[in-house]
Amino acid sequence: MASESGKLWGGRFVGAVDPIMEKFNASIAYDRHLWEVDVQGSKAYSRGLEKAGLLTKAEMDQILHGLDKVAEEWAQGTFKLNSNDEDIHTANERRLKELIGETAGKLHTGRSRNDQVVTDLRLWMRQTCSTLSGLLWELIRTMVDRAEAERDVLFPGYTHLQRAQPIRWSHWILSHAVALTRDSERLLEVRKRINVLPLGSGAIAGNPLGVDRELLRAELNFGAITLNSMDATSERDFVAEFLFWASLCMTHLSRMAEDLILYCTKEFSFVQLSDAYSTGSSLMPQKKNPDSLELIRSKAGRVFGREDKEAVFEVSDTMSAVLQVATGVISTLQIHQENMGQALSPDMLATDLAYYLVRKGMPFRQAHEASGKAVFMAETKGVALNQLSLQELQTISPLFSGDVSCVWDYGHSVEQYGALGGTARSSVDWQIRQVRALLQAQQA
Amino acid sequence: MASESGKLWGGRFVGAVDPIMEKFNASIAYDRHLWEVDVQGSKAYSRGLEKAGLLTKAEMDQILHGLDKVAEEWAQGTFKLNSNDEDIHTANERRLKELIGETAGKLHTGRSRNDQVVTDLRLWMRQTCSTLSGLLWELIRTMVDRAEAERDVLFPGYTHLQRAQPIRWSHWILSHAVALTRDSERLLEVRKRINVLPLGSGAIAGNPLGVDRELLRAELNFGAITLNSMDATSERDFVAEFLFWASLCMTHLSRMAEDLILYCTKEFSFVQLSDAYSTGSSLMPQKKNPDSLELIRSKAGRVFGREDKEAVFEVSDTMSAVLQVATGVISTLQIHQENMGQALSPDMLATDLAYYLVRKGMPFRQAHEASGKAVFMAETKGVALNQLSLQELQTISPLFSGDVSCVWDYGHSVEQYGALGGTARSSVDWQIRQVRALLQAQQA
Amino acid sequence: MASESGKLWGGRFVGAVDPIMEKFNASIAYDRHLWEVDVQGSKAYSRGLEKAGLLTKAEMDQILHGLDKVAEEWAQGTFKLNSNDEDIHTANERRLKELIGETAGKLHTGRSRNDQVVTDLRLWMRQTCSTLSGLLWELIRTMVDRAEAERDVLFPGYTHLQRAQPIRWSHWILSHAVALTRDSERLLEVRKRINVLPLGSGAIAGNPLGVDRELLRAELNFGAITLNSMDATSERDFVAEFLFWASLCMTHLSRMAEDLILYCTKEFSFVQLSDAYSTGSSLMPQKKNPDSLELIRSKAGRVFGREDKEAVFEVSDTMSAVLQVATGVISTLQIHQENMGQALSPDMLATDLAYYLVRKGMPFRQAHEASGKAVFMAETKGVALNQLSLQELQTISPLFSGDVSCVWDYGHSVEQYGALGGTARSSVDWQIRQVRALLQAQQA
Amino acid sequence: MASESGKLWGGRFVGAVDPIMEKFNASIAYDRHLWEVDVQGSKAYSRGLEKAGLLTKAEMDQILHGLDKVAEEWAQGTFKLNSNDEDIHTANERRLKELIGETAGKLHTGRSRNDQVVTDLRLWMRQTCSTLSGLLWELIRTMVDRAEAERDVLFPGYTHLQRAQPIRWSHWILSHAVALTRDSERLLEVRKRINVLPLGSGAIAGNPLGVDRELLRAELNFGAITLNSMDATSERDFVAEFLFWASLCMTHLSRMAEDLILYCTKEFSFVQLSDAYSTGSSLMPQKKNPDSLELIRSKAGRVFGREDKEAVFEVSDTMSAVLQVATGVISTLQIHQENMGQALSPDMLATDLAYYLVRKGMPFRQAHEASGKAVFMAETKGVALNQLSLQELQTISPLFSGDVSCVWDYGHSVEQYGALGGTARSSVDWQIRQVRALLQAQQA
Repeated sequence: MASESGKLWGGRFVGAVDPIMEKFNASIAYDRHLWEVDVQGSKAYSRGLEKAGLLTKAEMDQILHGLDKVAEEWAQGTFKLNSNDEDIHTANERRLKELIGETAGKLHTGRSRNDQVVTDLRLWMRQTCSTLSGLLWELIRTMVDRAEAERDVLFPGYTHLQRAQPIRWSHWILSHAVALTRDSERLLEVRKRINVLPLGSGAIAGNPLGVDRELLRAELNFGAITLNSMDATSERDFVAEFLFWASLCMTHLSRMAEDLILYCTKEFSFVQLSDAYSTGSSLMPQKKNPDSLELIRSKAGRVFGREDKEAVFEVSDTMSAVLQVATGVISTLQIHQENMGQALSPDMLATDLAYYLVRKGMPFRQAHEASGKAVFMAETKGVALNQLSLQELQTISPLFSGDVSCVWDYGHSVEQYGALGGTARSSVDWQIRQVRALLQAQQA
Repeated sequence: MASESGKLWGGRFVGAVDPIMEKFNASIAYDRHLWEVDVQGSKAYSRGLEKAGLLTKAEMDQILHGLDKVAEEWAQGTFKLNSNDEDIHTANERRLKELIGETAGKLHTGRSRNDQVVTDLRLWMRQTCSTLSGLLWELIRTMVDRAEAERDVLFPGYTHLQRAQPIRWSHWILSHAVALTRDSERLLEVRKRINVLPLGSGAIAGNPLGVDRELLRAELNFGAITLNSMDATSERDFVAEFLFWASLCMTHLSRMAEDLILYCTKEFSFVQLSDAYSTGSSLMPQKKNPDSLELIRSKAGRVFGREDKEAVFEVSDTMSAVLQVATGVISTLQIHQENMGQALSPDMLATDLAYYLVRKGMPFRQAHEASGKAVFMAETKGVALNQLSLQELQTISPLFSGDVSCVWDYGHSVEQYGALGGTARSSVDWQIRQVRALLQAQQA
Repeated sequence: MASESGKLWGGRFVGAVDPIMEKFNASIAYDRHLWEVDVQGSKAYSRGLEKAGLLTKAEMDQILHGLDKVAEEWAQGTFKLNSNDEDIHTANERRLKELIGETAGKLHTGRSRNDQVVTDLRLWMRQTCSTLSGLLWELIRTMVDRAEAERDVLFPGYTHLQRAQPIRWSHWILSHAVALTRDSERLLEVRKRINVLPLGSGAIAGNPLGVDRELLRAELNFGAITLNSMDATSERDFVAEFLFWASLCMTHLSRMAEDLILYCTKEFSFVQLSDAYSTGSSLMPQKKNPDSLELIRSKAGRVFGREDKEAVFEVSDTMSAVLQVATGVISTLQIHQENMGQALSPDMLATDLAYYLVRKGMPFRQAHEASGKAVFMAETKGVALNQLSLQELQTISPLFSGDVSCVWDYGHSVEQYGALGGTARSSVDWQIRQVRALLQAQQA
Repeated sequence: MASESGKLWGGRFVGAVDPIMEKFNASIAYDRHLWEVDVQGSKAYSRGLEKAGLLTKAEMDQILHGLDKVAEEWAQGTFKLNSNDEDIHTANERRLKELIGETAGKLHTGRSRNDQVVTDLRLWMRQTCSTLSGLLWELIRTMVDRAEAERDVLFPGYTHLQRAQPIRWSHWILSHAVALTRDSERLLEVRKRINVLPLGSGAIAGNPLGVDRELLRAELNFGAITLNSMDATSERDFVAEFLFWASLCMTHLSRMAEDLILYCTKEFSFVQLSDAYSTGSSLMPQKKNPDSLELIRSKAGRVFGREDKEAVFEVSDTMSAVLQVATGVISTLQIHQENMGQALSPDMLATDLAYYLVRKGMPFRQAHEASGKAVFMAETKGVALNQLSLQELQTISPLFSGDVSCVWDYGHSVEQYGALGGTARSSVDWQIRQVRALLQAQQA
């Protein structure tokens, strides 16, 4: 009889279960991560049962003591799973019964498996969010520190991978750091919605035995309690939100990695990865591949579109590794300031040339066209844009005069962008202060 | 020469453009939704240019007046697109130039296309979020009203589509309403992140002409300004967040629809859809299909995984229609209270039978097994669970006595679930108050 | 120095590698599935090297012998991974060197890691496709056998979950079996594209050492060789195809499971799952949940949208389990023929009523409307459709006469659908023959 | 009364339909693409009805004539939709009735809307597959022609975006062309499964009126008929397969575009896009952006994960445009052979240096390490790899002798890769012949 196998719904079943089906149904392979929070949740629930008069004080103490023993076994690596343990919850309860006997059977009174699963998952994810927040802050802090230290390095800003305008290297770093501050903000919001107690919802109708959910909330330090028992046991919005958070954060890290992969190429040669974040080739002896960056990029694909509980564990490991590797990469990256400077070219100042005409009173659209003609003239003649003579420029517009030579200074160009959020030094400093203030506010 | 075609980057190009390529690149088919916010954004920017001394007061007035005229043409349906208008921004500027001449060319000074596109999109989405919030509140309110009115109707709660425990019909309604309150909360968070001004970021380096971004923010009533110009023009987190919001909200509506589709079957017969939300079959004359519910469910698939700007417009239309149809369905649905009552069966009280033994001191795991044996005995004998005699029950456990007959009352069963969030009347009333308070808080 | 650690690109690196990065990069956790094909591929390659004169006969024999020893260790479970083994390929080569010394270093001559990885993966997936084909055939065969045995059972066909027309139970089984035959056909096509040899492509440029790829192909029994070395080492179309195949197959199994979950409800009660494929509830003693079916349905979600190599292993395990569970479910399912018959109701013959009028010469659109009126009249009067009197029917159309009574026979209704693919017995028999012929053709 | 509105299920409904619901349900906005195949399908079906004795010859002729008139109106742009036309099928039937009167009502006899929808969709997609096949062949042919013409151009092959080995430019082209030949093969398989007739399946039970499905198949030139009527009307595997085909094909085009975007950067400068496939910037006058390539890449995102019928129309338009733009880009691209040559550097021959030692008898693993040491020595000394003196090399291995100088010739390096699929000229020629043969075989 099936009840002999000790299955929880023992009383009724008469057929044997297809072993493939059993394996198929088991989640112990991944939900063992939950051992600690499962014990924590059960301890709180036994206190609730005692207050409701369903356990005596002595029974409660016996259960609490037994659960501490279970936790100790897990912590010391001596907990032994057996082949009937289909998930962490059955495993812990089975072991508790071995340790303290029949009293263990009272622990599940009025609690459903769903109740327990979702409480454990919320406890675990709450802790994970805190850990990931810390790693994310560490990465942002590293980026901001670096941005501050290297404010005076100029290099090309690109759009469509074509050289666009000179910018500060720090401006590039901050563009990615600012994106990550949004992830940090979102993670706190996700954590807030995770931090809600479902325990006391039973299967669907609620708890019929007078358990005080407010006591459970306080015991487990949740911020609020769920409103509806059916919703509480079935909803996984917080899982979807966490996975979406991870997707968006990975998108940002992936974009940063993509830029750096390019900047590492022989052709760009703007930065050099530390050996600690590179690998070689089994065939080509000269290769030094930016594998850390490629892994960050490829892990993004692994995070997108996952939907299950299993994904939470895997995605959370991935995020933890990725954030640490990214921090390592950023803190050890060498930049080649000279190559960066040499990549700035006069045609990147064509916008400034248009603004020169705007300042002399020409409408921007005409100035844009005039500057475009200058670019075309320079290309046709095979010279750099700043090598066109004043006479040549004047064939395009009579507004050009001797002071046009001031346009061809990259440092001067960058300093124009003083509006908030721009690449001028003052504006970059403002960004650094803003991001630091955000980090501080979020940590409060 | 390409400049003759009036393309914005006219000065330099010499080849003609492949017409397939042009069509491929054009977005006017869907971004015309943006006409109003594009005018709004341009008006604010021209005020910024005037303050920065790049437009005279007279030029600004001329531009503002022209833009009002453009808006008027759109509003009256007299705006004529021509085949070179590749997007709404070029169309409006082209028309402005026709109306006021060369001064129009000054409007784009220091502003990039990305700057403009993302400002417009944020303005439009901010408005959309407000509209959808209103529709969502309307739906939740309808559900809560209905839940309040029909608190006394009991019916079966299901898990795994098998009858589980008796619950209140209102408990089911509220389980879905509560899920929607989370969507409502999330939508406000998304709106907060949409409501940030990017204008003044230029292409990537920022704005070099002294435009006051704080003035632009105030003009367009944004809550904050973006921190970094490169990030500002390229990031679309808010689009991803909005689409994710829509996915999750559709998941909730889809699950509710799924339940209702089932409750509408001949086999369940718990509810009846209004004819206004049903359709027939072109072949089978007797059919009355729950098409509204199926559309809600199928639209969910259309919302998931979209990623582009085009998706924003389509998804936002879909959400608007779905929320209204759902409100209509809920407010016109008839329930068949009698069928609901008849679907309650004694085996759904097997958990209560176990609790009966728990209250007599038996540990829950044993009580669960004992109750399971009773179910098995009843099945074997081919009688209902409440038709087992006391003697028969006592063969399972001597703890059974005459008072076991009190277990077989559905109303009494439901009233046990008085813990917060449960299906007892007091708890359902508490849920109604909580959801109403949430709605009120969010609207403030 | 890094070279001491025995890494393959040992000569050049000077920094240590971040341990998180190492773990991040390692794939040994899942690619150990490949041990057998890795040995197989290396054996073939060493034969290729010998023919090209890069190994002596003695060296080749030494390598072949060593590889056999490696395989033996894996097979017996005595192979010991060490912490530097980042993937199965390094692990096997490391062990080979321990077993046979420096000659092992010759095995990788002209072969790149990508070369090896993709060859191994193709070998493994070819075998997996064959295994899954077999399981899929087994499932289809079970379904067809059952369809043949239960041809005379009628039950309601549904559209939009509303009762539509009477059909044979076998017709329903065959509708799912036919879908699976397409999966079977597609799997053979995928296998054909997997069965192409990439080995001999080097890193990107090809093999420069005169290795005979035709010999390698023959050794490994591939159907063809890849055409371009760059494409060969980087393309993973066959992985995407396999995962897409799995998604589509899971969609079919998931739909079948969804129908059966419904048919298992108390409300439908058409079928009953074997206990071997059901589970209970930890809280509610009476519950018997169709967990096998729900798992099939939920596993579908786990298969969709996976994209990586890791997914291949997991998805392939999932498919194997799902196909076996589905076969078990179908072969042990009990049907409740009486309930099925009772669920047939006269309104499901409304289409037949319309056809009755069509046969008397009325255009179908009018007949559809007339039959709809009869349905409405019956509903209004609160009687079944077949209980309307002839006089009542004649108020709708004078074409109704006494022979209308022949319409109300479900068996007769079903027998009308004799066109190929329909639900008449002859047509169901034809389907059975067709599916059997397909299976036989594919196995050839 | 609803029947007045002419809805097809007119007889029974009494409530009005919510207008949002109606709009929500309508598909006419996108399914009007189907007008031609809808007429084609109806013409065949009326022939089937005539043969089955359900239409007289005169009635059939009347219907055929009317349908031709409907088609003529669509072709001439004079067909007028009215607001009740919810889809193309109702629109055409409504118009037919206006043209020929009540006989039109006989056309739908025994045919369900699903029957009709899926037949039309298959007819349309069959045609689309043929068109796309033609465009794909055109692209492959262009690539192969170019590969043949430019066989003698060498440039760097990259892995991980780091320079790896010298290859032929044609080898790069062919690596992408070969991937596209798989798409071409798959498209033919998809077409084969599209080309199956569902008509004659009714709603679910089949066709009860003796329609000869074999006649319908022959009329519409399908390759086979569907096996089961329930499956036939509900399955959309062929849609999923088509969309998957498009995703995979777009992945290939997207990867090619990604490479070209990089080769177009100032930093690489290997190729130059024709002006016809570039665009400028509204702000920066010097910009020439590879928009065609970026669009190809971004359209890929729009194709992935679509699942609905609407997607078929959009994806098919996208594929058509993308294939043509890709063909245009490839045929007009200029290459900068001199820059390509200059990008080859001696360290890319480090693998050849290892092979040099292998040929002198050193095991490859040792040779790889020795060559790695040479690379490290050159880097340390700040010289190119080929500038190490023989004495210096001999400190690494005594096997180096004077003939090592032969290693430093890129042309010679490339010619080594003569194994099938490699980058040697003979092997590239073989690839060209193979791809041409494939194209020819598929067109047959």
